[in-house]
Amino acid sequence: MTNEYDPLPSWQEGKVKSRIIEFVQQVTDENSQYFVVPEQRLATFDNDGTLMIEKPLLAQVAYLKRKLLNAEPLTNVSKLHRILSWCKDALFDAQNLLCFAFYFLRTGITTDEYRDSVARWITIAKHPRFQQKYTELTYLPMIEVLTYFEAHGFKNYIVSGSSANFIRPWSKKVYRVSANRVIGSSLRTRLGKRNGDLAVKLEPIPFSIESRAGKVLSIERRLAQRPIAAFGNSYGDVDMLRWARTERQSLCVLIHHTDEKREYKYSPNTRFRWGKNTLTYAKELDWQVVDMKNDWKTIFSFEKKA
Amino acid sequence: MTNEYDPLPSWQEGKVKSRIIEFVQQVTDENSQYFVVPEQRLATFDNDGTLMIEKPLLAQVAYLKRKLLNAEPLTNVSKLHRILSWCKDALFDAQNLLCFAFYFLRTGITTDEYRDSVARWITIAKHPRFQQKYTELTYLPMIEVLTYFEAHGFKNYIVSGSSANFIRPWSKKVYRVSANRVIGSSLRTRLGKRNGDLAVKLEPIPFSIESRAGKVLSIERRLAQRPIAAFGNSYGDVDMLRWARTERQSLCVLIHHTDEKREYKYSPNTRFRWGKNTLTYAKELDWQVVDMKNDWKTIFSFEKKA
Repeated sequence: MTNEYDPLPSWQEGKVKSRIIEFVQQVTDENSQYFVVPEQRLATFDNDGTLMIEKPLLAQVAYLKRKLLNAEPLTNVSKLHRILSWCKDALFDAQNLLCFAFYFLRTGITTDEYRDSVARWITIAKHPRFQQKYTELTYLPMIEVLTYFEAHGFKNYIVSGSSANFIRPWSKKVYRVSANRVIGSSLRTRLGKRNGDLAVKLEPIPFSIESRAGKVLSIERRLAQRPIAAFGNSYGDVDMLRWARTERQSLCVLIHHTDEKREYKYSPNTRFRWGKNTLTYAKELDWQVVDMKNDWKTIFSFEKKA
Repeated sequence: MTNEYDPLPSWQEGKVKSRIIEFVQQVTDENSQYFVVPEQRLATFDNDGTLMIEKPLLAQVAYLKRKLLNAEPLTNVSKLHRILSWCKDALFDAQNLLCFAFYFLRTGITTDEYRDSVARWITIAKHPRFQQKYTELTYLPMIEVLTYFEAHGFKNYIVSGSSANFIRPWSKKVYRVSANRVIGSSLRTRLGKRNGDLAVKLEPIPFSIESRAGKVLSIERRLAQRPIAAFGNSYGDVDMLRWARTERQSLCVLIHHTDEKREYKYSPNTRFRWGKNTLTYAKELDWQVVDMKNDWKTIFSFEKKA
């Protein structure tokens, strides 16, 4: 680092920070054996738990909960409550979000209306513990990574188990990632009408679930390209990181939530897990593991502004 | 036009050419009531019959036919021949292409292998009538439109009933449209292994069909944005043009194949059509209809180089 400008000021000096900087220097240095042309500099980022707080509820679950509680008529309340508590226990299963959405979306809203509704909610909703907007509870060190990558010719994509249309209304402002670079779970849609014009309406049927292998398949379907850098925090991101790892030069980073005091402390594995432990993968495949407690000087975006 | 540089030299002076130029001038003029910010300048183009020759066989069908004829062992030949002639009669039905693909893909190739195979074929295959490569049988006037749009801040996307992975290997070179801006029909995929590494394999099951409403739904799912300009040539493109038409300022262009001598003459409707005639839509919604015989001075890209 010496006298140079520090692109990652919120990161503690250490193994992970050094490796990120080394990686970017290598792939952008035309004289390096690891040089990668700009068109191939694809970086993919999980959202919940990787770029943004995901406890006690995913932002999308908090949104849907609010919508459900406001819904008129609120039918079958006890059933909804059962579903809510079930979802709370199985945060990493995107399927649950879509089950949720089933109830909310039974009225047949258009994709435009859904995005508008999210856009309004996200400007007012506050996190129960931190009393900050969700967009302020993004991780400052990761915002620095996005900025650093972008400045070095990377195309940053978000690949989330939450719905793409939940993230799109604010991704440009918060992450500098435009709507067309957000890949996420989605429901089926159909072409219908609204106010006499053609409009796309959401159907309460899952179309694609971006978790585990689904993240790989969606990136491949969309871009026909493999990321050279991938960031995740949970078992749902393992396949995406393994796939990025097969590139000649790659950076695979697992965010490990170890800071009970400043954020939350929890395992990257889901309760219902098949296959290897996520941290075992990280060790065997030589991924960078971020120990949030020790690797990050600052956690949240709002702390910078404070 | 007067003394200015002519961006569309292969187009005859006339109503369609004037409207295209007027449209581009209006949406790029900050003082115009029709000004559109660059991020919203999305243009979508059908491929077969709009940017490239599609008779007597779609390029993708010609490719699959060759692969099938070369396949070892070639089992059940008479059945394949029946399917081939059936597809020939129903060119506009993307579902047929995928049925075809079913036979070809039974060996479980990866998406990389499929794209490599197309990339090799496209450099040698010649069209039966013109004895030119398919990539030389793209329409020069449309290449000019792509270039003109790109120079004015448009994002050009291809939205095709053919498979995205059939077009991606050559779209950058031929259309200056990169692989991530190609939206097309696709098969299901699964995460498997090839030579010990993770690889994405094609399954012989349709995932999405980009025809009619499918084109709209895929653009919306991918970009969460509506095109302000859309180009097509058949009934399969009607919904995409109708959808673009609902923008405040829009350009909707239907290429009508009217030149028996220099290319082919055929109807924009499929044999099995429900709903309105395509040309009736064009008239009612005030689309620009290109009469290829009279509106295009030159038809094919190869003629420019000759």
